[in-house]
Amino acid sequence: MTTAADNGVNVQALLDAREVLKGAPEAAQFTWRASSKWQGGVHTTITVKDFFGLGQEQNHKEESVFEADHPEVFAAEDDGITPIEYLLVGLASCLSAGVASVAQNRGIQLHSVDAVVEGAHDIRGILGADSDVRNGFNDIKVTFKIDADASKEDIEALVAQSQKRSAVFDALSNPTNIAVEVD
Amino acid sequence: MTTAADNGVNVQALLDAREVLKGAPEAAQFTWRASSKWQGGVHTTITVKDFFGLGQEQNHKEESVFEADHPEVFAAEDDGITPIEYLLVGLASCLSAGVASVAQNRGIQLHSVDAVVEGAHDIRGILGADSDVRNGFNDIKVTFKIDADASKEDIEALVAQSQKRSAVFDALSNPTNIAVEVD
Repeated sequence: MTTAADNGVNVQALLDAREVLKGAPEAAQFTWRASSKWQGGVHTTITVKDFFGLGQEQNHKEESVFEADHPEVFAAEDDGITPIEYLLVGLASCLSAGVASVAQNRGIQLHSVDAVVEGAHDIRGILGADSDVRNGFNDIKVTFKIDADASKEDIEALVAQSQKRSAVFDALSNPTNIAVEVD
Repeated sequence: MTTAADNGVNVQALLDAREVLKGAPEAAQFTWRASSKWQGGVHTTITVKDFFGLGQEQNHKEESVFEADHPEVFAAEDDGITPIEYLLVGLASCLSAGVASVAQNRGIQLHSVDAVVEGAHDIRGILGADSDVRNGFNDIKVTFKIDADASKEDIEALVAQSQKRSAVFDALSNPTNIAVEVD
């Protein structure tokens, strides 16, 4: 690891956290939360503010508010992006954060990291037009364009390592149990 | 189906679309997109504007811009929510939109639909502290609070049907293939 590269990631703090949490697994148990309020139609407002981690309640610096709706081609108002698009927002940002962290750890200076994430979706599933069609994405494609002081091979290795440690890549690639309750 | 309930969802248009798309599967092929730009550290800005569907390029009414970062407890700047939290934003809004659509189809008047979505996450996975811990959520819990002109059983049935047709519920419950390329 060289000290010349500065991508703005405090890798030492993350390496220290890794060591500390190896001996304190209970502190590593986080709970992320989002709260939503229906606005009429298929329009929902979602807020994200607090979470649990390191053994106690935590807060983001600011509350974030998001709007979700369906587009006009679904006979809706388009007062926000479609819920499924939020998954692509999460995937793009998680993989990009991973690229920056791995680059820092490897002493590679980044200049730009752009990504386009595309999710193919056969909407016959959600409409109930064909029971053989799944409701979610058929597949997802991520295309990175990265300018860095490194070879093409080293850049590809950054992206590969980012995938291996990405929370969102795993959450979308592999199944998760979801319990739904009515209070 | 009664006509008394008005939840603001144009169910007839959706039922019509279902019939049309049964005979035109190519029109049902959508591609959702998000584009991201790294801002330094683990901070990324993501924009969502256009998508493909009904056989042609489409646009949201407005471009939406999102910020993703890591919280201060991860030694970052917290200039946006964490990428994995965007998955919870999508899940809350998708299930809520489904509840509204199904309620409209069943003639049930909704008054309020609130949800809290919680994702349990053992961060030892992403930190590489324990290779037996997955990177994504351990599990997700959704708790609905719904006020509607309906019995508890009918409300629970709305939520169950919403899960069955939810794009995001499927995308998080079941695996999706993700291809990552460097341009």
